[in-house]
Amino acid sequence: MSEFRRTAAAFVQGSRTLPREYYVSPQILADELESIHARAWNCVGRASMLVAPGDYITRTIAGESIIVLRDRSGTLRAFFNVCRHRGTRLCREDSGQLGETIQCSYHAWTYATDGRLLGAPHMQEAEGFDKADYPLHAAAIEEWEGFLFVNVARSPRPFANVWAPMIRRLARFDMPSLIVGHRVRYDVAANWKLVFQNYSECLHCPTIHPKLATVLPYQSGANDLIEGPFLGGYMEIKAPNESATMSGRPAGKLVSPQLSEEDRHRAFYYTLMPNLLLSMHPDYVNYYLVHPISADRTVVESEWLVHPDTLHGGNLADAVEFWDLTNRQDWDIVGQSQLGISSRRYEPGPYSPRESMPAAWDREYLRQMGRSVASSQ
Amino acid sequence: MSEFRRTAAAFVQGSRTLPREYYVSPQILADELESIHARAWNCVGRASMLVAPGDYITRTIAGESIIVLRDRSGTLRAFFNVCRHRGTRLCREDSGQLGETIQCSYHAWTYATDGRLLGAPHMQEAEGFDKADYPLHAAAIEEWEGFLFVNVARSPRPFANVWAPMIRRLARFDMPSLIVGHRVRYDVAANWKLVFQNYSECLHCPTIHPKLATVLPYQSGANDLIEGPFLGGYMEIKAPNESATMSGRPAGKLVSPQLSEEDRHRAFYYTLMPNLLLSMHPDYVNYYLVHPISADRTVVESEWLVHPDTLHGGNLADAVEFWDLTNRQDWDIVGQSQLGISSRRYEPGPYSPRESMPAAWDREYLRQMGRSVASSQ
Amino acid sequence: MSEFRRTAAAFVQGSRTLPREYYVSPQILADELESIHARAWNCVGRASMLVAPGDYITRTIAGESIIVLRDRSGTLRAFFNVCRHRGTRLCREDSGQLGETIQCSYHAWTYATDGRLLGAPHMQEAEGFDKADYPLHAAAIEEWEGFLFVNVARSPRPFANVWAPMIRRLARFDMPSLIVGHRVRYDVAANWKLVFQNYSECLHCPTIHPKLATVLPYQSGANDLIEGPFLGGYMEIKAPNESATMSGRPAGKLVSPQLSEEDRHRAFYYTLMPNLLLSMHPDYVNYYLVHPISADRTVVESEWLVHPDTLHGGNLADAVEFWDLTNRQDWDIVGQSQLGISSRRYEPGPYSPRESMPAAWDREYLRQMGRSVASSQ
Repeated sequence: MSEFRRTAAAFVQGSRTLPREYYVSPQILADELESIHARAWNCVGRASMLVAPGDYITRTIAGESIIVLRDRSGTLRAFFNVCRHRGTRLCREDSGQLGETIQCSYHAWTYATDGRLLGAPHMQEAEGFDKADYPLHAAAIEEWEGFLFVNVARSPRPFANVWAPMIRRLARFDMPSLIVGHRVRYDVAANWKLVFQNYSECLHCPTIHPKLATVLPYQSGANDLIEGPFLGGYMEIKAPNESATMSGRPAGKLVSPQLSEEDRHRAFYYTLMPNLLLSMHPDYVNYYLVHPISADRTVVESEWLVHPDTLHGGNLADAVEFWDLTNRQDWDIVGQSQLGISSRRYEPGPYSPRESMPAAWDREYLRQMGRSVASSQ
Repeated sequence: MSEFRRTAAAFVQGSRTLPREYYVSPQILADELESIHARAWNCVGRASMLVAPGDYITRTIAGESIIVLRDRSGTLRAFFNVCRHRGTRLCREDSGQLGETIQCSYHAWTYATDGRLLGAPHMQEAEGFDKADYPLHAAAIEEWEGFLFVNVARSPRPFANVWAPMIRRLARFDMPSLIVGHRVRYDVAANWKLVFQNYSECLHCPTIHPKLATVLPYQSGANDLIEGPFLGGYMEIKAPNESATMSGRPAGKLVSPQLSEEDRHRAFYYTLMPNLLLSMHPDYVNYYLVHPISADRTVVESEWLVHPDTLHGGNLADAVEFWDLTNRQDWDIVGQSQLGISSRRYEPGPYSPRESMPAAWDREYLRQMGRSVASSQ
Repeated sequence: MSEFRRTAAAFVQGSRTLPREYYVSPQILADELESIHARAWNCVGRASMLVAPGDYITRTIAGESIIVLRDRSGTLRAFFNVCRHRGTRLCREDSGQLGETIQCSYHAWTYATDGRLLGAPHMQEAEGFDKADYPLHAAAIEEWEGFLFVNVARSPRPFANVWAPMIRRLARFDMPSLIVGHRVRYDVAANWKLVFQNYSECLHCPTIHPKLATVLPYQSGANDLIEGPFLGGYMEIKAPNESATMSGRPAGKLVSPQLSEEDRHRAFYYTLMPNLLLSMHPDYVNYYLVHPISADRTVVESEWLVHPDTLHGGNLADAVEFWDLTNRQDWDIVGQSQLGISSRRYEPGPYSPRESMPAAWDREYLRQMGRSVASSQ
């Protein structure tokens, strides 16, 4: 596959880690939420959560509670979880069924599932009040490979433009057909960028992940996305292992019959700004949603996607255990990085060519923050 | 009663709720404590707590711990809970008996109950030291209808001026004769202003309070105080209910024989800036002290006052249960308002004529904060 | 001993306590850590913790995690606990044995115990990388009377200059020969300066410490260090008590045979900026390390040092109980001071001549903060 390049080729000599304040400043976190998350297409999970009209979930994006739903006509929609009357939160649960309308439980303002204000008791007594002026505030929503993405900006950049590099890239994995087989939530004592950087290189694997290192040699593979908001590539699954599981045996059926012979011995890892980490293996896909909570705390939600047959005949626990072990090793070490970087004597250190991906991620991050790489160092 | 006007008459068309920052900014809360609470007459409870010379309570006003006491001569006094030597807090308990003096437990500086410094070990060795220069810092104190009010300002506006609209207004309820029958404390996950606004209208009652709505129809009654720091009026108690209790029967004896026939079928609700909500029913009075803790947290302390005979022959629990249910419904919904208003997409929404009281309260609030209504929106 | 002067002689008439903001402002605490702690020689405990090459402890100074160790050649060293690669914390434990090297557990950068970078996987692929450019960041370290002191400044003032007044002053106690007999940690709800000020005077002893006051009369003794960063003197142990213990009997053997007859009936108390309180009694030494945590919280770690024979034939618990009682009384009252000083009505109060030491401490504190005494009041 000619599009895969050797990592070293993409390395910018002299790359260094980000300065201290990017990891400890509450102000920079606020800037990030405004400049990156509040302008970007944030993954909120799988479309399979919203099957019937009236199905909804609530999710937090850049500090905003958003209602994501399928309206009465079957269209996917997203709304700010805020009544237009006195601001009350409308939906309290993580998920549920709305029925025909969304009614505020305070003064009974009532909205259609497409956001139109239908009823507002006694407001007809207020001069000039027009229900058409008070629909729910909408957020933009898109679906890609079975994932849902929400953008809370007033004028979002079109998904098709921003995500152009990804649109057809992973089609052969047939992810829309997969179902959720497992779900887990982690609380990480580190800045969210450390989670991305950690995911982006395997130079640490021999030290931190002795089990993983026997299955996925850190010097194997290559990257096909080496600059920009989407980064990553593949690693080789080392024979006789057939997948990244505790036993080395597959956890279930191939995710798609379209996978090439090469794909069947590879594991793919992509960071997709601003909040999605996507791992594809021959027999399962696991992904991570990264939620910044404070400068030194991040919540990571993860789901495992599998072929429907795997849930019955497969052994998904074999893969879950493999990654749960690996993830906990990662959260532990990024917690130690967070502590060390907080030192006033910390200064940006040198990236090696084996860390070209975190270096590229940092560049894209600075670009989205509107800062030049030079001025950050 | 000609002084009662229909609510709609007082409504300022175009009134809108306050902007987001008023509910989420710690800086605005600090401004409120300085501009409103630290200049106003704050209710600290009932005078019946201080019967004998030396009786004291400590209360927090605008972040200040204040000792309120009856001195050796029987006079009510209030002092900052701060030793003039090295600043140590003098009284630790919520209430107690001082005896003849107040002694600091650090270096034994000793004060009379009227605040004069009586003893200061070894200070006579300091040149020019004069005990007369170090009395306790006094705060102003007044009594009204059996309630105590403290003002921590250096030059408080006279109580008689500020409270002129209230001085004789509720005399027929004979509140000084009532005794405390019940006490409760609530912790509310919302800004203190949401507690005032919620108390100020019953448009929400059909949605939030199905029980209350059967007893106190939200469209009944009228308001007699419709602008300024004191706002409110009455609602009709719907027959066959005789009071606002779970059973509809009175909780005890009439609070005063002076109540008119009309008063005996009415419930009165007043918001009295900066921290008192006062509810009068034919057979009991309940009041609420509202303590801002942080931008999104408020403590509410409440007491029930009744005719002394009610404690023995009455059924106060019937009223307590009614309001405990109602209060918890209110604290729940203002918590949801707090969450929704915190959204960056929240914007001030329209008040209906049925919300003329919260709109008037907001105007008075902005006036006391030194901000024009126009500039707030 | 002519060097001891009566306290009153050193008193500056008109001395007053520090203004409120010094006790409540997070910004002033940050300034203190920068201006005082990050420039000073901070005591980190006893050299006896580091016996063999490779022994290490980690301690926090001015918010910095510091590794203090004995290197392979036997030399004491201190390093910032920060990997030069990506900033990861190197040592997690409070104490341990390093072996031959310090290896970062993230990407396996490896350092000699003298700080030199020995190995950095794949960094040879980065152009111009030179291991000599990336030693661990060193901090300065000194030993005095068996205590270790670390200075995290880039250009520390020489210990021998700063500590000149102390270098030989306490040699007769032979503290290097003493061993640790007991250890305790306290969490105090007060600003760290209140802990120093409280330790610096015994005017409060009759009120706060009825037990101690029978053994150590507050008007006894004299001070020999009355201005500057090191302050203190002695008090007389009142016969028939032979030491400051619950029983009045010695807790063990004399700490040193060099103690004069006078020394054997005295207790010595010194505040040694920025973080050491040192108490010497004929039969034991106890000291306190004072760690500011926030403007209103301080952690105090204390150890008892005794002649080696005391651990077996003595009764150290008799002394430990005496001071644990006394310390808890002090932490309680400084907590009340913290609360009272937080009042906006608190203003600096007058020190008496019996409080000449806290007044001198405040002067030195302001000097180190770069503020004049006059402008502080």
